[in-house]
Amino acid sequence: MPDFDLAIRGGTLVTAADTVRADLGIRDGRIAAIAERIADATRTIDASGLLVLPGGIDSHVHIAQESGPGIVMADDFASATRAAAAGGNTCVMPFALQPRGSSLRAATQAYRALAEGQCHIDVAIHLIVSDPTPAVLGQELPALIAEGYTSFKVFMTYDDLVLNDRQLLDVFDLARGAGARVMVHAEGYDTIRYMAEKLERAGETRPYGHALSRPQLVEREAAHRAISHAELVDLPIVIVHVSGEQAMEQIAWARSRGLKIHAETCPQYLTLTAEDLKGRGADDPMAGAKYVCSPPPRDTASQEAIWRGIQNGVFELVSSDHCPFRYDDARGKLNPRGQQSFRYVPNGLPGIETRLPILFSEGVSAGRISLNRFVELTATNHAKLYGLYPRKGSIGIGFDADLTLWDPNRRETIRQDNLHHGSDYTPWEGFSVTGWPVTTIARGTVVAEDGRVIGDLGHGQVLDRTIDPALRPTG
Amino acid sequence: MPDFDLAIRGGTLVTAADTVRADLGIRDGRIAAIAERIADATRTIDASGLLVLPGGIDSHVHIAQESGPGIVMADDFASATRAAAAGGNTCVMPFALQPRGSSLRAATQAYRALAEGQCHIDVAIHLIVSDPTPAVLGQELPALIAEGYTSFKVFMTYDDLVLNDRQLLDVFDLARGAGARVMVHAEGYDTIRYMAEKLERAGETRPYGHALSRPQLVEREAAHRAISHAELVDLPIVIVHVSGEQAMEQIAWARSRGLKIHAETCPQYLTLTAEDLKGRGADDPMAGAKYVCSPPPRDTASQEAIWRGIQNGVFELVSSDHCPFRYDDARGKLNPRGQQSFRYVPNGLPGIETRLPILFSEGVSAGRISLNRFVELTATNHAKLYGLYPRKGSIGIGFDADLTLWDPNRRETIRQDNLHHGSDYTPWEGFSVTGWPVTTIARGTVVAEDGRVIGDLGHGQVLDRTIDPALRPTG
Amino acid sequence: MPDFDLAIRGGTLVTAADTVRADLGIRDGRIAAIAERIADATRTIDASGLLVLPGGIDSHVHIAQESGPGIVMADDFASATRAAAAGGNTCVMPFALQPRGSSLRAATQAYRALAEGQCHIDVAIHLIVSDPTPAVLGQELPALIAEGYTSFKVFMTYDDLVLNDRQLLDVFDLARGAGARVMVHAEGYDTIRYMAEKLERAGETRPYGHALSRPQLVEREAAHRAISHAELVDLPIVIVHVSGEQAMEQIAWARSRGLKIHAETCPQYLTLTAEDLKGRGADDPMAGAKYVCSPPPRDTASQEAIWRGIQNGVFELVSSDHCPFRYDDARGKLNPRGQQSFRYVPNGLPGIETRLPILFSEGVSAGRISLNRFVELTATNHAKLYGLYPRKGSIGIGFDADLTLWDPNRRETIRQDNLHHGSDYTPWEGFSVTGWPVTTIARGTVVAEDGRVIGDLGHGQVLDRTIDPALRPTG
Amino acid sequence: MPDFDLAIRGGTLVTAADTVRADLGIRDGRIAAIAERIADATRTIDASGLLVLPGGIDSHVHIAQESGPGIVMADDFASATRAAAAGGNTCVMPFALQPRGSSLRAATQAYRALAEGQCHIDVAIHLIVSDPTPAVLGQELPALIAEGYTSFKVFMTYDDLVLNDRQLLDVFDLARGAGARVMVHAEGYDTIRYMAEKLERAGETRPYGHALSRPQLVEREAAHRAISHAELVDLPIVIVHVSGEQAMEQIAWARSRGLKIHAETCPQYLTLTAEDLKGRGADDPMAGAKYVCSPPPRDTASQEAIWRGIQNGVFELVSSDHCPFRYDDARGKLNPRGQQSFRYVPNGLPGIETRLPILFSEGVSAGRISLNRFVELTATNHAKLYGLYPRKGSIGIGFDADLTLWDPNRRETIRQDNLHHGSDYTPWEGFSVTGWPVTTIARGTVVAEDGRVIGDLGHGQVLDRTIDPALRPTG
Repeated sequence: MPDFDLAIRGGTLVTAADTVRADLGIRDGRIAAIAERIADATRTIDASGLLVLPGGIDSHVHIAQESGPGIVMADDFASATRAAAAGGNTCVMPFALQPRGSSLRAATQAYRALAEGQCHIDVAIHLIVSDPTPAVLGQELPALIAEGYTSFKVFMTYDDLVLNDRQLLDVFDLARGAGARVMVHAEGYDTIRYMAEKLERAGETRPYGHALSRPQLVEREAAHRAISHAELVDLPIVIVHVSGEQAMEQIAWARSRGLKIHAETCPQYLTLTAEDLKGRGADDPMAGAKYVCSPPPRDTASQEAIWRGIQNGVFELVSSDHCPFRYDDARGKLNPRGQQSFRYVPNGLPGIETRLPILFSEGVSAGRISLNRFVELTATNHAKLYGLYPRKGSIGIGFDADLTLWDPNRRETIRQDNLHHGSDYTPWEGFSVTGWPVTTIARGTVVAEDGRVIGDLGHGQVLDRTIDPALRPTG
Repeated sequence: MPDFDLAIRGGTLVTAADTVRADLGIRDGRIAAIAERIADATRTIDASGLLVLPGGIDSHVHIAQESGPGIVMADDFASATRAAAAGGNTCVMPFALQPRGSSLRAATQAYRALAEGQCHIDVAIHLIVSDPTPAVLGQELPALIAEGYTSFKVFMTYDDLVLNDRQLLDVFDLARGAGARVMVHAEGYDTIRYMAEKLERAGETRPYGHALSRPQLVEREAAHRAISHAELVDLPIVIVHVSGEQAMEQIAWARSRGLKIHAETCPQYLTLTAEDLKGRGADDPMAGAKYVCSPPPRDTASQEAIWRGIQNGVFELVSSDHCPFRYDDARGKLNPRGQQSFRYVPNGLPGIETRLPILFSEGVSAGRISLNRFVELTATNHAKLYGLYPRKGSIGIGFDADLTLWDPNRRETIRQDNLHHGSDYTPWEGFSVTGWPVTTIARGTVVAEDGRVIGDLGHGQVLDRTIDPALRPTG
Repeated sequence: MPDFDLAIRGGTLVTAADTVRADLGIRDGRIAAIAERIADATRTIDASGLLVLPGGIDSHVHIAQESGPGIVMADDFASATRAAAAGGNTCVMPFALQPRGSSLRAATQAYRALAEGQCHIDVAIHLIVSDPTPAVLGQELPALIAEGYTSFKVFMTYDDLVLNDRQLLDVFDLARGAGARVMVHAEGYDTIRYMAEKLERAGETRPYGHALSRPQLVEREAAHRAISHAELVDLPIVIVHVSGEQAMEQIAWARSRGLKIHAETCPQYLTLTAEDLKGRGADDPMAGAKYVCSPPPRDTASQEAIWRGIQNGVFELVSSDHCPFRYDDARGKLNPRGQQSFRYVPNGLPGIETRLPILFSEGVSAGRISLNRFVELTATNHAKLYGLYPRKGSIGIGFDADLTLWDPNRRETIRQDNLHHGSDYTPWEGFSVTGWPVTTIARGTVVAEDGRVIGDLGHGQVLDRTIDPALRPTG
Repeated sequence: MPDFDLAIRGGTLVTAADTVRADLGIRDGRIAAIAERIADATRTIDASGLLVLPGGIDSHVHIAQESGPGIVMADDFASATRAAAAGGNTCVMPFALQPRGSSLRAATQAYRALAEGQCHIDVAIHLIVSDPTPAVLGQELPALIAEGYTSFKVFMTYDDLVLNDRQLLDVFDLARGAGARVMVHAEGYDTIRYMAEKLERAGETRPYGHALSRPQLVEREAAHRAISHAELVDLPIVIVHVSGEQAMEQIAWARSRGLKIHAETCPQYLTLTAEDLKGRGADDPMAGAKYVCSPPPRDTASQEAIWRGIQNGVFELVSSDHCPFRYDDARGKLNPRGQQSFRYVPNGLPGIETRLPILFSEGVSAGRISLNRFVELTATNHAKLYGLYPRKGSIGIGFDADLTLWDPNRRETIRQDNLHHGSDYTPWEGFSVTGWPVTTIARGTVVAEDGRVIGDLGHGQVLDRTIDPALRPTG
């Protein structure tokens, strides 16, 4: 019997620290050997000329999530994990959302049920706490954390999700005691409402109004506030989807003071701008709705600032914030109310499949970041921060054989026609990239190959996790 | 014949990114395999309960360097590499110094000759450019860089080393074209002279006067100046031995603006203060001379700031700046002129053997930094920045088998009696640490074991290098 | 008939810009002439050796204000203006507070009625908006502003006063349109409640708990938030009673970005610390209650920072935030609930009479600020920012003859026994000062002389005001 | 006999603090009375509808200064003070320059001789120390300071003027002991030489090369260095003609740390840009030479930054840095060597006559600064910082009757044809302004009226000065 189920030969292995030429031996879905030459395997994949990367982990995706009356998210677990696998990912982390007034546990159980048996790749579930009642704080949330739902997101905006400052402090306090990781959506609720109503009164109801209603200071102020709360409670937090230079400066300032503030950004903040919400010159007055997400994309100066932040370490995570809606759909971007005002255009972009190629191309191929930094930003830090490490996030003995074979020289153009997600458009239609995932291997099994998803729906598992507080990327 | 010359079994491997339980197989001095279990080896070392770290690389040490009339450095290559090996290092980088008015090439050749055949571990030689004449800039330096001396240090102070701003700009320009790495000693020459003369006139001639003559702003101003020159020339530089919060803030500011400024600090700036130059209450009025180094240690606020900088990524290197003199020696700290004024006390501390235990204990054991960050700060980043990577600096297939087996729980007290360097004292006499290097393996050969250096003097080689500009730790 | 009703001869006149030796001629309560020599007057005051300053304007005092159940403020208009006059002031600005659920207009009228005929010196009334209902925003407040109540304060904390962010934005918007000046009490409500409840649960109920419940970041966060709102609405605001370095840094940052943020501080933040809330070593466990005010005094580092901010222009106003309660009184600091928890100790210090001597002594006499800056900080800027200029706030033709004759060399010790306010203690008992107001002249009439208040209660008038937006101190 | 020699009636008096309607009575060249109405005067000027401002003080002008071989400055004292008077100034401060290798005293005496009897308005002479020999530091400079030459400028660039850091520290030290005010030209000598030679090698010799050779970081670095020296010596300094945002940020940073750093800027940095050195589209390839000054004008972002600095108090002085050369003149801008390379185009712009109208129009009329701030920036602060106060710089009893009657509404277009300076061009040809000086009164005598200079050449005196360290504008 051969030593290994699978050998990957001739590739260049990349971790967050190192780049080496070596073969990989895989047994029982895990990496069992790394060596100059591994010959004795049941199956062999030739990775000559390719990079062997840890499979992408996308720790910020929305799948099949409740999205308000009449609105339906464009992906279920099957389509989302299919698209993720095609895009070089081996694990994604969606959110079980507590509807206000409901049980967090019930919501979590129902959401997990949607995932079980419906995933091409592994999935780990964050929670969204929208209603920190005494029952939630006193019983449900601590129990769920103990069971392995060790991370949750809180919102500083949205009518049905926003927590006030007292609630934020209370959940931060709980997280500190329970060892959970907290993600913060930092935009100021009241400020957005004030702006949105003002814009509506002025008749500025088109999708572009969404960008006008959330200027950078809205995000900066909320970031400062979240940082202050984290400082008071002495809790490390993750500020997600940072879009602008001003919020980034708050985070950099906090870190220079020794605070443990982690930060995530997304491809949309590196490649899109608020101008896109004007519709890119299309005749269709609603075309800008395709780019409505929160925070909104900013301008080229902020793009450059965010790149600087990626380069100098402010950002430790690049996620997609995949939040897919169909455009030409009465239950999506073109719902009737959304056509009346930007306030009702569902917020979010599909991006689960395009995150890795865009970041690789604009980052690594363009000379902005190293290969190792790419791996850190797209896999290792996600695993470390959210409790998947050392099972996932790197290439090493004992790790799940979650791997992406990457062709650094392949040039592709992103086209909706070639994508696997449930949405009917991509914001990056026509975007050219250099570097492409050619094979995705999840726990030792090839799940996608050259654009075809070939794995079983039941291959992916729902993972429980424990956060190791020492595994923060920095320090 | 067994597959491997040496197997290291049962240890926990640590790289800058990952921590995994695995065995190592070594062949021909290089790492040939990493696997769950490696059985088939000529020799086996049991590393159970130990960490297996990349051997320490100390990229900033002074060995057998010309030190002015009547002063002799306390280490030659034999003693320095002996001490380094005992302290867990597998490579050190001393400096070939060009005496002003002399040929850089001649100095380099003479210095290399001192090293050849006299080293327990590998050595790579930086240059010190003190006299950038047209001949040096036009011929010698470019040729030496092409031959593998790909890094050099410049000084902004010291009578016989200081370069003026024009010279700095010219050598920066040359380095940019030639692909060399430049290290900068950032303290302002004129300011120090002004202060020293003022202190002497006031009768403040004791060793403590050394600290008074170099307040933080002396370092801050020079750091700002070096940064400005690097910005103009568009050259990444390394600002070495950063001692104080003020210089650190300049570096952090530069990086926030997107400049590629690298920074090194040393254990003395994390554990000593200017108060030590007062002699720690000893009767001996010269006792403070033991702590005279440049920049001088500061205060506890700066220690905390430097720790913050280590944690949030400002610092990418921790070196020893080993610069050993004997204390009780007329050719060392107690030379006759030095007893008249601090200006003639030779600058420098012995630290090559204590760098790793001190940083491990105060950093990792004290919970300030992760194991991975320790490896990055003491080995990987040195190799990447100075062109030793991917030969050295990590644990991976094809890397030199430069390894340190580290007992993270062993408690030791630093004592001069137990050290191997040529100096007659250590500034850390009596300092307690948790964590200790128990075995040092250089290119597959055990060179130090439990405090005994057992390798041959000829084992170490003098390495040539090529700088890969993409291998900067950040970005 | 003499040309002037009153001549002040031989003094040194000080304005915010200039210091000159000249005589003053006063007619009909106004300054009619400034000359080398003014001889022809009905009455002459010899000011030889004295400074002639614009009378102090204290734009932040609380008088006879509703203070919650069972609590009574220690000053009515008679006693407050008596104390103010004795302390060198000629105008004070208290607040008409809108109780939540009530009419702002009614509250204002009732409050004005308390003042009419009961004042030794002039009074101008700010509003406090605690309940910005549609009626208040749509009718009452615009009308009151038009009638001359051109400034109002909003609170970001206190159960019965706090406005949420939306309310803040709405009143900022209104103020921008109506040309009103907005003062902001910047402390975060939810954060304070969170801390207070936590401290109570931990049994930390003594007065010192008040300081613990409001660390600097509580003030910093609220300052940042208020600045962001002001930036969005494009409204200049005044952040009052800034106590700490962290909030100050936010203000300095905002101003460096071109935002029009004005800032006020108070003598308590220059001379007291949180340690005072421990009771200064008194046996009485409640003694610290004498120093309970919001924000609480900080530490000596913050004192120095605030002085720097006064020197470099961050602060444009020094007010007293006089908010007097009796100590040994069941309706004051020692009310029954206050003895149970710091949360019920009424917030505030008496300071209307001591502001000028303390700032003069610690500022001018100690060499920290110039005479002109003293005048600017205590009179001119108050008049300019709050619409009393050019009637009040300087010495010039046509200004009200509001003057304080000041002996810069007189040494005094502050004693409760010598003060005129309604409180039974002063926080500065025993505090020694150099510089003292010897005569206060309000609209040409001597109202206080050497510690005796000799004016009529009816002399002071209630003034209406118009804000001139161009009269900001800076720019 | 009337009480006053001159009455100025009906105007609005403006000081750095106040704006009041009042009449002025002048006797013996000084202000003797300010009153509602002054009737009894030998001569009366009707200032109805006009502002009465303190005459402009231009503390940074170059007149008849040695300018290198073959180059002649375009103004002598007669023409410079004629132009200054026409432009609303009543005092200017040129520099007595010590040629290196020569006596500072001899240079000063020779320079003063040029001025005596040749000035329309008063003049006070700064020194330029280019050669701080022991004789200069030990005897000449202290003696000259004691005689009333209480301020001097030092240069960090220019071949024949540059001081090295040690010399800067020594003269700072002397200034501190002697109570002199030091002005610093902050640009880095070596950096400029490096850039200039590089540009020449690249054939970039046109006037625009001047701007390229002095990027903002050249000024920023020198400013940081000067600040550090000032910090070490504990000496307040004035950093003159700040042109760019980056240097300004250093100054703001220094002040936030409590350092006493004063800053001056000039109209050219508010209205011109480096693009002007390209010649404004003229056919003449040398046309850009008209705008060659040091530091060079920057860009519109820096203009906005400098305005912010004026508004928020970073800048306390606006001077002209008048340094006039003729353009179409072989001894001026078009000298033969200057046509070969920008390095030989004499540095400087004529601006003594246009400073006040440009700043008034762009500052006061455009709503950026108040009238009082205008007076502070153009007169009061100059007098205070350089020892002319309280004789000059404001309107008050005992001050010299140095006054400018200013029509705030008059619209004019700046034209070389209408100017009185010795240069043959103005950089502001065609620049439209609102606000114009209509009458200039120097010590009670009208010296310019509606564009005609009518005073005697002998009217201006050379003034000695004493610096009062307490009279810094801030603090």
